[in-house]
Amino acid sequence: MEGKRVYTFGNKCAEGNGKMKELLGGKGANLAEMNLIGIPVPPGFTITTEVCAEFYKHGMTETIAIMRNEVERAMAYVEKLIGKKFGDEKNPLLVSVRSGARASMPGMMDTILNLGLNDKTVVSIADLSGNERFAWDSYRRFIQMYGDVVLGMKPESKEDHDPFEEIIDNLKERKNIKLDTDLKAEDLKELAVEFKNAVKAKTGKEFPSDPWEQLWGAVCAVFSSWMNERAVLYRKLNNIPAEWGTAVNVQAMVFGNMGTNSATGVAFTRDAGTGENVFNGEYLVNAQGEDVVAGIRTPQQITMQGSRRWAELQCIKEEERARKYPSLEEVMPAAYKELFEIQEHLEEYFSDMQDIEFTIQEGKLWMLQTRSGKRTGAAMVKIAMDMLREKQIDEKTAVMRCEPQKLDELLHPVFDPAALKKADMIAKGLPASPGAATGQIVFFADDAEKWAAEGKNTILVRVETSPEDLKGMTVARGILTARGGMTSHAAVVARGMGKCCVSGAGEIVISYKDRTMTVGGKIYKEGDWISLNGSTGLIYTGKIATKDPEMTGDFAELMKLTDKYAHLKVRANADVPRDAEVAMGFGAQGIGLCRTEHMFFEGDRIKAVREMILADDEEGRRKALAKLLPIQRGDFEGLFKTMNGYPVTVRLLDPPLHEFVPHFEAEMREMAEDMGVSFEKIKTRIESLSETNPMLGHRGCRLGNTYPEITEMQTCAIIEAAMNVEAKGGEVHVEIMVPLVGNNKELKYQKDIIDKTAAEVFAERNRIIKYQVGTMIEVPRAAVTADEIAEYAEFFSFGTNDLTQMTLGFSRDDVAKFLPVYLEKGLLKHDPFEVLDVDGVGQLVREAVFKGRTTKEHLKCGICGEHGGEPSSVEFCHYAGLNYVSCSPFRVPIARLAAARAAIKQGI
Amino acid sequence: MEGKRVYTFGNKCAEGNGKMKELLGGKGANLAEMNLIGIPVPPGFTITTEVCAEFYKHGMTETIAIMRNEVERAMAYVEKLIGKKFGDEKNPLLVSVRSGARASMPGMMDTILNLGLNDKTVVSIADLSGNERFAWDSYRRFIQMYGDVVLGMKPESKEDHDPFEEIIDNLKERKNIKLDTDLKAEDLKELAVEFKNAVKAKTGKEFPSDPWEQLWGAVCAVFSSWMNERAVLYRKLNNIPAEWGTAVNVQAMVFGNMGTNSATGVAFTRDAGTGENVFNGEYLVNAQGEDVVAGIRTPQQITMQGSRRWAELQCIKEEERARKYPSLEEVMPAAYKELFEIQEHLEEYFSDMQDIEFTIQEGKLWMLQTRSGKRTGAAMVKIAMDMLREKQIDEKTAVMRCEPQKLDELLHPVFDPAALKKADMIAKGLPASPGAATGQIVFFADDAEKWAAEGKNTILVRVETSPEDLKGMTVARGILTARGGMTSHAAVVARGMGKCCVSGAGEIVISYKDRTMTVGGKIYKEGDWISLNGSTGLIYTGKIATKDPEMTGDFAELMKLTDKYAHLKVRANADVPRDAEVAMGFGAQGIGLCRTEHMFFEGDRIKAVREMILADDEEGRRKALAKLLPIQRGDFEGLFKTMNGYPVTVRLLDPPLHEFVPHFEAEMREMAEDMGVSFEKIKTRIESLSETNPMLGHRGCRLGNTYPEITEMQTCAIIEAAMNVEAKGGEVHVEIMVPLVGNNKELKYQKDIIDKTAAEVFAERNRIIKYQVGTMIEVPRAAVTADEIAEYAEFFSFGTNDLTQMTLGFSRDDVAKFLPVYLEKGLLKHDPFEVLDVDGVGQLVREAVFKGRTTKEHLKCGICGEHGGEPSSVEFCHYAGLNYVSCSPFRVPIARLAAARAAIKQGI
Repeated sequence: MEGKRVYTFGNKCAEGNGKMKELLGGKGANLAEMNLIGIPVPPGFTITTEVCAEFYKHGMTETIAIMRNEVERAMAYVEKLIGKKFGDEKNPLLVSVRSGARASMPGMMDTILNLGLNDKTVVSIADLSGNERFAWDSYRRFIQMYGDVVLGMKPESKEDHDPFEEIIDNLKERKNIKLDTDLKAEDLKELAVEFKNAVKAKTGKEFPSDPWEQLWGAVCAVFSSWMNERAVLYRKLNNIPAEWGTAVNVQAMVFGNMGTNSATGVAFTRDAGTGENVFNGEYLVNAQGEDVVAGIRTPQQITMQGSRRWAELQCIKEEERARKYPSLEEVMPAAYKELFEIQEHLEEYFSDMQDIEFTIQEGKLWMLQTRSGKRTGAAMVKIAMDMLREKQIDEKTAVMRCEPQKLDELLHPVFDPAALKKADMIAKGLPASPGAATGQIVFFADDAEKWAAEGKNTILVRVETSPEDLKGMTVARGILTARGGMTSHAAVVARGMGKCCVSGAGEIVISYKDRTMTVGGKIYKEGDWISLNGSTGLIYTGKIATKDPEMTGDFAELMKLTDKYAHLKVRANADVPRDAEVAMGFGAQGIGLCRTEHMFFEGDRIKAVREMILADDEEGRRKALAKLLPIQRGDFEGLFKTMNGYPVTVRLLDPPLHEFVPHFEAEMREMAEDMGVSFEKIKTRIESLSETNPMLGHRGCRLGNTYPEITEMQTCAIIEAAMNVEAKGGEVHVEIMVPLVGNNKELKYQKDIIDKTAAEVFAERNRIIKYQVGTMIEVPRAAVTADEIAEYAEFFSFGTNDLTQMTLGFSRDDVAKFLPVYLEKGLLKHDPFEVLDVDGVGQLVREAVFKGRTTKEHLKCGICGEHGGEPSSVEFCHYAGLNYVSCSPFRVPIARLAAARAAIKQGI
Repeated sequence: MEGKRVYTFGNKCAEGNGKMKELLGGKGANLAEMNLIGIPVPPGFTITTEVCAEFYKHGMTETIAIMRNEVERAMAYVEKLIGKKFGDEKNPLLVSVRSGARASMPGMMDTILNLGLNDKTVVSIADLSGNERFAWDSYRRFIQMYGDVVLGMKPESKEDHDPFEEIIDNLKERKNIKLDTDLKAEDLKELAVEFKNAVKAKTGKEFPSDPWEQLWGAVCAVFSSWMNERAVLYRKLNNIPAEWGTAVNVQAMVFGNMGTNSATGVAFTRDAGTGENVFNGEYLVNAQGEDVVAGIRTPQQITMQGSRRWAELQCIKEEERARKYPSLEEVMPAAYKELFEIQEHLEEYFSDMQDIEFTIQEGKLWMLQTRSGKRTGAAMVKIAMDMLREKQIDEKTAVMRCEPQKLDELLHPVFDPAALKKADMIAKGLPASPGAATGQIVFFADDAEKWAAEGKNTILVRVETSPEDLKGMTVARGILTARGGMTSHAAVVARGMGKCCVSGAGEIVISYKDRTMTVGGKIYKEGDWISLNGSTGLIYTGKIATKDPEMTGDFAELMKLTDKYAHLKVRANADVPRDAEVAMGFGAQGIGLCRTEHMFFEGDRIKAVREMILADDEEGRRKALAKLLPIQRGDFEGLFKTMNGYPVTVRLLDPPLHEFVPHFEAEMREMAEDMGVSFEKIKTRIESLSETNPMLGHRGCRLGNTYPEITEMQTCAIIEAAMNVEAKGGEVHVEIMVPLVGNNKELKYQKDIIDKTAAEVFAERNRIIKYQVGTMIEVPRAAVTADEIAEYAEFFSFGTNDLTQMTLGFSRDDVAKFLPVYLEKGLLKHDPFEVLDVDGVGQLVREAVFKGRTTKEHLKCGICGEHGGEPSSVEFCHYAGLNYVSCSPFRVPIARLAAARAAIKQGI
């Protein structure tokens, strides 16, 4: 069948089938399949996606020439089945022309109905149907649709007048008519004439009356619509490659608008919102396809049960409902029964919840489309687990039915949809951390703390956040920043906390001095209420009611399933027992990253930290570190106790020291007083710490290598804590991780200090415990020299945040300056801080795993960057042969699901 | 001979030879070789470097056991030749024990003379020599030397008293003696006793009297000295691996201190300072080895001619000279004649200028050492080219004799050595750009310009420099910065200019407000004179006279030779015709990097640049760019004219835009007025440009991709300039280089703009010219995806500065914070911004070259980072298969020489 461009279907036969989605598109493949399983479908044919590619290569004329013969043959096949002839003046066949890509792109591309009508065939249709109004309404609709889609009559923007609507309005005014439905056959005839005149006036050409000319125009317009703005945008958002192209489906028209025994509707085999196993949907009597979704008339419910539930919500009494909004089940019981059976058949056949379209023409039911239905995260999980229990699908399929990213919806509070509809959007930022939050604007972290203590809900609004804001972030309901990307400090910390955050809202101008934020010319003061949607990045004025996520039993069941199939283990990034508990609750199998520096900010510790940083010499540093030792030991004890028996990877101090020192004069003066040294000295020392590019500066193991006493103290705290917890019957698996290693000498130097310090503790306590020493792989040089580094490492943990920064040369704090343009121009497919750059960074990860394991065959490899919680990146980690991923506690379920899917995909 | 640990020599026989430097060390191998060619050398034997390795593996006792038999056999051989017996009380053989590594490490390790003396043998020596004083002096010297080196009597620091010197001082005081030479035999006897007592008092053990025990102790002490602090430091500075180890040479003693017919001396076969072909050196009558270099007595010249020249310089009259400081030629004509013939023989035999040591014992000449002599850059070139003309060496050898790094001395002004001796050093920074400079302190670039206009010599002193300081840097005699490393802005720009610069002088505290710099508690004001030595990093107070480098004809000859052998072409990094001319003068074969942004700072252009940056929209930017177009075109015309026929690689705008805007309020206000907009607007816009990590920010092609109009303007300027120059008969080979590409889409996007713009210029002028489009490879991701990038690139130029920053995660502006510690602790071997990190960055370079050429077989590859002028990096570039290196104009000769040496080394 190579080179075949057109595939017919109809009357329980089809040249294609449901598996041919690449060639026929989803709609075309399913239309074929429905025929093959005996579902009534109007006959027609599908022009393949390959012809779309030819269209973009050779242009319109050549493409028509290439496909003409096959299309004519297919049309003849349809004519024969229907007993009408395309273009025949007496008994004309009318067709619909619809797009249909490999992946569903609802409403993105164009559709043309009633094609084949002209001044002559319209008369025959009127005669044959005995319904002149129907015939002329169909004709004027066709001219309008064809004019818009093929002839470019559509207004450029929404503000411009639609020339066709203008004509209708004029006519209604002239004739003093209110509703479209009041237009008579005569009026519609008049409209058809005026429409054609308008086309000629604007395009300079007559409206095409030759049905074949109409057809070629429509087919090519559908191909063209693959590249229209909304389709391009949709593909970008949904990662659909442009080269896939669309197929075109040409089908004999059936009419839901041929009177009161005709109808059209859409339905779902289960509830797409909740997943409940109930058939549901909407229909309209005497209406054509698009009317149901257009929202001009109120659609009615298909089932009796659905209708009653709907009426209840609308506060409509049963009597009124039955009279004005009866269900299809009541109005056309025979057709309903057939529809019900077909939907059951389709769901069973395709083993998934279906989204179907149908038309009833004079009592006869026709199916126009079936496809897997879009659903919410909650519905996704419930349907998968229900169908598993119903034995409609097996375990692997249930897992594959659940998209990891959609699980996110189940993990955060959300706005009440009704309240959201009424809300006023004021700006848009990046959807940095999902969830919904409503609170009063506060600009400073300590105010947030104060207000929270008073029981106020706050939204912390900052240009950017820093580790100093941590406590304020913890107590705020949501965080809004004017700068920073998806992996800015605010975003990363918020995601770690499972807290709503919108970052990088560039339109917002913040004045700390005036305590105001200005956006779109309007000023918002401290204390004003705003609301954030962290899942969309939208910012609203005022309060919006939120609701808590529902954690159903199905969700837990699904998670159990994932563990059965996943190869990758999933750990969490957690620094304190509270986070560790959340992570364990989500099924984390260890901590992959405990950032010790986050422990440095609380309470009085920061003073000791600062004392250490500002000390003149090693002796001074050791004095300050001695104060920190018991505190850190206590922190680790808490963590080890919580993670009893699970591994905990503790990273040694990583950020540059200037992150810990005060940056304002008042604070510096306070510190000088506390430490009993001059303000000037403090100031000079702090200034000397500043760096041009802190990301590439004095941080990571470079600290421990210049100040070995820091590593000594941290090691001592870790080992002593582990011994203390074990002494009380706990089980500790501690992995000490050296950050920012670039060459093996750096790692060896740190490992020597760690081993020496541990040996000293062991000698002192006359007991030993096991521990491992490993390293982050986050500097490109570490990746390319991983064989050497593995000599001293018992594990690798890929810090893909920093590895991305350095491999791509992107500062994640600054990338918002050009990233939007890059995404828009297609110079990047994704934000590389969100989705792992498999081709670049991924190459280095694979190389490092390979080289590391040439040195140590069973080297444990994991990832602890933000990517560890992003599904496609988790999939990459599976293929790269990592042992585990580690992510924010709130993303653990997503990672577990992604890991299971990757393993199932690989076919193991 | 495998496993042989000891090699004897003596009496024109030797078990080793001159080629066995790895095993016998340089000294041992040459001692053997001298024997083989009939030079009189005291007989002895060499213990191999492999024994040194055994010593570090097994320790002293085992090592002695391993070598004992062979050493005894060798000693017997020496005894037989000399007719004395080691340890014999009547006719004792005395020996010297000296270190001798593979590479010469003068004065770094320990030497022991007169070994074999004890209370009994000293008496025999006195009897045999008939010189009691000589015997006891030798004995007390031996105890002293052995005590220091083997028994640990040496004081810990220079401040502590040497116990032996203290004893001498006490005795002299007691006996009222002034000079050591006035000590009588009796006194020396007394000293020997007291010395031995002191040893016992400190070590608790008797001084060893058994010559064999003495020998084993001395041999092991020499092995130990391989790891002493100064040896470790020397190796680090000279890149000598620790695993080489040292050999030990044991030789029968000959005595230059046996009376007035004895002498000892060192000499060079040619002048080590100038390269002049004259035998020269110094000697002392009646002296032992170390006395000549110890500086207690004034050494005399060996040759008559040398002696006269010396006296002239010292203003000593001929009569006095001949009486007090006669030459060896005068004093011992026979020995001199023999010495002269031997040095001629040695130089001819080794085909290189030799540094020799000799001793004359009672009229008999003995050679103690010969080795290739260290020499200045000027001498290096002259000697190589002289010897080539003398046909002593061939062309390749002449090239290999010249170390590229030493050429640097020939390329910059230097301090007058006499003046330097008297100068006061006040601080030390990094030797960022060689040369010498004297001038008045100035803190601001515009003051430097003003003062220069008044004819003043200035030293621009800044915390750091920025592109705004460019003009000031151009006119200053030297640049001093308190921050920044070897590749900071100041260092890079200064090297580019061939201007003296000392960077990162951390001790200096600069107050711009007070216009002072403080160092070591002393305040230097604006206008005070200081001097900088950019070759050493030393900073002096006051003026020091400088002299211009001498460019001899030999230098030019050498450069011609390099071109004959080098595979790599050498281009220069130059932005303006002036620099290009310098580069051409040094033999550059093109421009490998023209940084267009450097053109943006001069005069009124910066205003247009700022207008472009601060424009609200594309239209505004285009307006400003239109002003820049003719200026840039003019710049390029100048450059293309200068480089007539040679390739010129023009890099599109690279630095982040905030580098061009003013950072002080006054300037911002001025700008606001100039542009007719509000100060607030200017301020806000400038603030919005600031970045956390500018290195990884909005720069390079990210600018051209967000603002394509910048690329359009620059392309237009380049192409039009090339056409204009060609129209006037010039020949232009222009290569347009896109910076900071990370993926091939970015390059394609830029290339499309360039090609479209060029096509428009061609269409307008109805003529076309050739041009190439290529890219920098400086982002690690570009290196790992080089196969894809090569699809759109006609050449790759490795920007190893940035590639190093990103691959290692080092910010070159901040690296001074930990680099010194890293170098000290051996965590890094070199500053990676100075010497290319072959194992890390080099892997990426090789990978990119390989991948790039899988896509385009003959892809032109070069390097334009600072490493392009560093010899070992140039060698790497040769092996990596690059086509060219590009470096600062003043380093072009160095790169040419390095390129030739690499090719010769490879044996092609």
